[in-house]
Amino acid sequence: MRKDRKVNELRTVKIETNYVKHPEGSVLISFGDTKVICNASIEDRVPPFLRNQGKGWITAEYAMLPRATEQRNIRESSKGKVSGRTMEIQRLIGRALRAVVDLDKIGERTLWIDCDVIQADGGTRTASITGAFVAVVIALGKLVDNKTIKELPVEDFLTAISVGVLPDGKEILDLCYEEDSQAHVDMNVVMTGAGEFVELQGTGEEATFSMTQLQTMLSLAQEGVNDLVKLQKEAIGKWAEVIEKRQTAGVAEE
Amino acid sequence: MRKDRKVNELRTVKIETNYVKHPEGSVLISFGDTKVICNASIEDRVPPFLRNQGKGWITAEYAMLPRATEQRNIRESSKGKVSGRTMEIQRLIGRALRAVVDLDKIGERTLWIDCDVIQADGGTRTASITGAFVAVVIALGKLVDNKTIKELPVEDFLTAISVGVLPDGKEILDLCYEEDSQAHVDMNVVMTGAGEFVELQGTGEEATFSMTQLQTMLSLAQEGVNDLVKLQKEAIGKWAEVIEKRQTAGVAEE
Amino acid sequence: MRKDRKVNELRTVKIETNYVKHPEGSVLISFGDTKVICNASIEDRVPPFLRNQGKGWITAEYAMLPRATEQRNIRESSKGKVSGRTMEIQRLIGRALRAVVDLDKIGERTLWIDCDVIQADGGTRTASITGAFVAVVIALGKLVDNKTIKELPVEDFLTAISVGVLPDGKEILDLCYEEDSQAHVDMNVVMTGAGEFVELQGTGEEATFSMTQLQTMLSLAQEGVNDLVKLQKEAIGKWAEVIEKRQTAGVAEE
Amino acid sequence: MRKDRKVNELRTVKIETNYVKHPEGSVLISFGDTKVICNASIEDRVPPFLRNQGKGWITAEYAMLPRATEQRNIRESSKGKVSGRTMEIQRLIGRALRAVVDLDKIGERTLWIDCDVIQADGGTRTASITGAFVAVVIALGKLVDNKTIKELPVEDFLTAISVGVLPDGKEILDLCYEEDSQAHVDMNVVMTGAGEFVELQGTGEEATFSMTQLQTMLSLAQEGVNDLVKLQKEAIGKWAEVIEKRQTAGVAEE
Amino acid sequence: MRKDRKVNELRTVKIETNYVKHPEGSVLISFGDTKVICNASIEDRVPPFLRNQGKGWITAEYAMLPRATEQRNIRESSKGKVSGRTMEIQRLIGRALRAVVDLDKIGERTLWIDCDVIQADGGTRTASITGAFVAVVIALGKLVDNKTIKELPVEDFLTAISVGVLPDGKEILDLCYEEDSQAHVDMNVVMTGAGEFVELQGTGEEATFSMTQLQTMLSLAQEGVNDLVKLQKEAIGKWAEVIEKRQTAGVAEE
Amino acid sequence: MRKDRKVNELRTVKIETNYVKHPEGSVLISFGDTKVICNASIEDRVPPFLRNQGKGWITAEYAMLPRATEQRNIRESSKGKVSGRTMEIQRLIGRALRAVVDLDKIGERTLWIDCDVIQADGGTRTASITGAFVAVVIALGKLVDNKTIKELPVEDFLTAISVGVLPDGKEILDLCYEEDSQAHVDMNVVMTGAGEFVELQGTGEEATFSMTQLQTMLSLAQEGVNDLVKLQKEAIGKWAEVIEKRQTAGVAEE
Repeated sequence: MRKDRKVNELRTVKIETNYVKHPEGSVLISFGDTKVICNASIEDRVPPFLRNQGKGWITAEYAMLPRATEQRNIRESSKGKVSGRTMEIQRLIGRALRAVVDLDKIGERTLWIDCDVIQADGGTRTASITGAFVAVVIALGKLVDNKTIKELPVEDFLTAISVGVLPDGKEILDLCYEEDSQAHVDMNVVMTGAGEFVELQGTGEEATFSMTQLQTMLSLAQEGVNDLVKLQKEAIGKWAEVIEKRQTAGVAEE
Repeated sequence: MRKDRKVNELRTVKIETNYVKHPEGSVLISFGDTKVICNASIEDRVPPFLRNQGKGWITAEYAMLPRATEQRNIRESSKGKVSGRTMEIQRLIGRALRAVVDLDKIGERTLWIDCDVIQADGGTRTASITGAFVAVVIALGKLVDNKTIKELPVEDFLTAISVGVLPDGKEILDLCYEEDSQAHVDMNVVMTGAGEFVELQGTGEEATFSMTQLQTMLSLAQEGVNDLVKLQKEAIGKWAEVIEKRQTAGVAEE
Repeated sequence: MRKDRKVNELRTVKIETNYVKHPEGSVLISFGDTKVICNASIEDRVPPFLRNQGKGWITAEYAMLPRATEQRNIRESSKGKVSGRTMEIQRLIGRALRAVVDLDKIGERTLWIDCDVIQADGGTRTASITGAFVAVVIALGKLVDNKTIKELPVEDFLTAISVGVLPDGKEILDLCYEEDSQAHVDMNVVMTGAGEFVELQGTGEEATFSMTQLQTMLSLAQEGVNDLVKLQKEAIGKWAEVIEKRQTAGVAEE
Repeated sequence: MRKDRKVNELRTVKIETNYVKHPEGSVLISFGDTKVICNASIEDRVPPFLRNQGKGWITAEYAMLPRATEQRNIRESSKGKVSGRTMEIQRLIGRALRAVVDLDKIGERTLWIDCDVIQADGGTRTASITGAFVAVVIALGKLVDNKTIKELPVEDFLTAISVGVLPDGKEILDLCYEEDSQAHVDMNVVMTGAGEFVELQGTGEEATFSMTQLQTMLSLAQEGVNDLVKLQKEAIGKWAEVIEKRQTAGVAEE
Repeated sequence: MRKDRKVNELRTVKIETNYVKHPEGSVLISFGDTKVICNASIEDRVPPFLRNQGKGWITAEYAMLPRATEQRNIRESSKGKVSGRTMEIQRLIGRALRAVVDLDKIGERTLWIDCDVIQADGGTRTASITGAFVAVVIALGKLVDNKTIKELPVEDFLTAISVGVLPDGKEILDLCYEEDSQAHVDMNVVMTGAGEFVELQGTGEEATFSMTQLQTMLSLAQEGVNDLVKLQKEAIGKWAEVIEKRQTAGVAEE
Repeated sequence: MRKDRKVNELRTVKIETNYVKHPEGSVLISFGDTKVICNASIEDRVPPFLRNQGKGWITAEYAMLPRATEQRNIRESSKGKVSGRTMEIQRLIGRALRAVVDLDKIGERTLWIDCDVIQADGGTRTASITGAFVAVVIALGKLVDNKTIKELPVEDFLTAISVGVLPDGKEILDLCYEEDSQAHVDMNVVMTGAGEFVELQGTGEEATFSMTQLQTMLSLAQEGVNDLVKLQKEAIGKWAEVIEKRQTAGVAEE
């Protein structure tokens, strides 16, 4: 049906940690041919609106190399402004991470997440979130290791995946660029390891979708998320167990 | 439970047509204390990427008067750039309208939608979409009346409404500003008159939501949409019937 | 001679107070088909160049909705900069109001005046100044009512009106857009209730004017100002008397 | 009364022609310690809004060297935007020159006027206009000399001068910086050689002025203009006579 | 003397070709811990100033990921402008490549060079030029292979290397970041395979250097260049021989 | 051989001091038809990165009047950004001056250097540096005279000159615009009075140069520098001797 994989199958996902040497957390994530460098930097201060409140902040920036895509894009620094698409994505990444990190426990620090797409083939925002989560855990883990903070302030795993509806009405998981450009509906789902929604963005460009289609897409997303969480666990090593415990505790608590 | 209305109740919604004299379609819409001027302008050309394809385009811009809000906001023209929030909203409005207007039937024309919030109390983007739809129908109706185009190229009604989850876990419809600023989950639902989704944007800021909560919120949204469609029908007069016919035809077709 | 009114006649002028709920002072003023929302906001600090001097400041911003005009204008926030015309007008509004408000008596506060034209048909800057004055009195009146300041620090009424010379040499008062675009000379006169000039801006675009024409135009302006002051008095209610007293005192003093 | 000259006396005014070698017209003008380089450049095309109409355009730009003033100003190119003050002045210069040049007779050409203040001591805009007129005549004269156009399309002389009211109520001509910063009223008058007004901009910053004061200021301005026209005649040599003839003809015509 | 290598020794240099899949030429080059992605894109048109002249153009852009450095840098797209340093470097890269590519033989095409530093440890501009040359040869080679152009229009190899003077007066080759930040003199040398200079930029920041020091630095640079050319030859495979022939021919010609 | 002077001959160089009245140091320098106003301003604070370190800073800005050149250039303030060329030049001027001024001895002050080209005919950056040095000495001299600082913190003379290679292979000194636009190689040399290099920038635009050509160019530059230092000595009067002493001392010290 689909060129080379089943409708509910992810592309090959790889997470390479410590990719760049300077950042506190650095990851190269690939979803098939989509490759994103996710760097997490820790800055010892917060933006003005948070000062003197004893809590931290997470903010994200997203960009593509000009030739990450089939056609070269003009560099946003040359244009002198960031596009609406870029803004939407970086706001999404920041919001998503803030949902699983306990900002009260990181002190007056800002986590800067930089997601730079070096090669694009669809799903750059979902790869960014999934990789950024790993970079954040590694960066925060260092703060725990060097005793700057007491415990890892991460409440659950966080992954993102795209689902969509092809013109023939078929729902699919993890769209590559070619599929994405044909799809009538495109939905990005950000979920925790516990299966809670963090963000849901479904869009019909010159098309609509029904409640039934929504249900099917959300089921596919759930499958993808489970696979991604497994890969994240491998990537973060000892911290996986810490998050799992907290996750169980959190569920119990509710 | 809720200050002055039931959880599944809209605020008082009013749609005043022909509010400003120059635009082809002009509406003042209020959702309670939220008031938005929605103007639709028709330009006889399309953006470069669509030239010579015989089809049209819809694009939207959104802004707030500096003192639409409790605290005065800096004017975006003074800042010299449009915020990420503004960009997200205007992209959303444009996408939503393109889902129900048949762009192939409006010729090489651009519909400019300007949504200017003169008073804000939550739900400015949903009021904008709901009002903009009426302005668009009026503007396109004029093209039909003066025989520039043959028939009204509008495939269904289009409305938007917010739903959310309060800190106590209660799901509610059409959040005012005070509710919105407390809510753990905020979701905007754009739907057609036929009950199809056009856009779904659910966000947990430093929180998450379950599948059950999602279902409840979507049911509330459906109720709100039904009420809004009734008001749109009154506002657009003779065109309501035209759209209803097409809507039935469309459903039959599927 | 003139389509529907005498050369020395104003268009229908209306001043609606408390138009928007959040601002300290809010007015919708219309000069015929020209409609401007004038909001006055009070901020409890002054710009850096005035800090610690115990006095206040008044600054103004002016904008038009994109479709306030016959042809849609590009939004200045989208262009990323404010036009020269906008800058001139907002500087004029601010300067004019500072001439009648005693800045030493408002404490270290800034009055932000926002004039947003929702429908334009000539004379938007004169309507803005005339309406802004009313919004300022209402805003400052609230400071008196809640005893933040002792007395209304407004020294006189302030109105603005346009005069011009038509191609046939005839001088006229309060030009609508059609007249304005034909006029050889365009002059804006800002005057106090006592008949003193605050600002005089006369311009011949590819034309000139004589001393005699100047005199005639100034007489017309004086007539218009008298009518506008009457309407302002009605709009500001109890504060009218306070200003009248001060105005008489001021004249006596000189 | 006044430090070193009578109230109706200009500062020493000098006009040096051919100051810079590249421009078609180049002038260094000084009004006392105020020194402005006025260059007129001829470009063989017009802005888009005038294309294919067979007529020309005049546009002006104005700037100050950062250290033209007592305190160094930040360069507008570094700030990335032109201030409101600069915009007002350059719009004024362009408008003023368009009033005396017959744009229909210069063909599809743009005259670029660049007024760069190298030393400022009050009256930079009036010096700019007065000097720019000379640069324009020289530039247009070259077009006549090389037979590109048939006759000098300049209808009259054009000068500008400031007048004002000191705190003691005394009206004065040609304010230097110190006087300007004290003055209650500041008025710039742009006049033709025939004594017609081209532009009148009177401003009371936190003050007002009466009709009587206006009359006195306008008389002073007329005196100053007469002196400036004499200096312009010397500077433009043979072209003075041509303009005088046209001026007489123009007056006869009216 | 030097931590881990001789004064005339390069760091480990690696050139990985076909690093990203979309660009016509793509290289990941490392000079020790400095890593730069160099992409060459071919666009079938030239900038306006070259149109209809039958020749091509090469232009370069340079950027660093925010966390390529020890401290995170603000993204230039967020700042809304490109820094002076970035501009200098990208102008240098473009100029350097234009010196060895025969622009008359590439037709009306633009070669866009994108150098994106993913990890920085000194020498990013020299690594960029050295890597960009390889990307350009690969991209142009494809044009030859698919017969778009007849022959490889590359006249010689092109490499760049830094040299400098340490505070103790010792001249060294290929400075890492730590050395660079201490050095009194920093010189970048761009050379052809034939040993001709393309660009020489020597700078003493708060210091100077003598003719003798210059000579020593240039000798060191020559040594480094020889090593880099060897690595470039390996990276470009069959094209190395083509360039060598042309290089010999060129030398004979002179 | 060369139109009007020998290959090793400078154009007529003139240095006029106290050209503008407000700056602490002001110079009009001409290299033939190239004329630059160099103003040095002293500000009693330093940029943030230097605060509380007890040392000062020198920064430079460079601009051309729009019609300094044969063709009018768009004003950088109108474009809203500074070009790469301008940035390179102003960074160069600042760096060059910092090499000969002892920043530790000027206190927490910033020297702002403004180089404004009023007429351009090649060599504007070398004229700027040579003139700026004189303006700086005059400005710092005033600080010594009024006992703000103890001694003139200038370690040596500083001049700059261009050298190049013509298409016929001939090396020449001090290129005028016509020569510069033909030259295959263009090199700017910044040197101290003692003959040390401060900055060396040699560029082959679509060309290269040999070691022999480099040597010849550097010898020419040395000759030019000697002549320029003589003129600087005349311009700075009594301070020449102070610098000479320090220069000798400095050489002895090494």
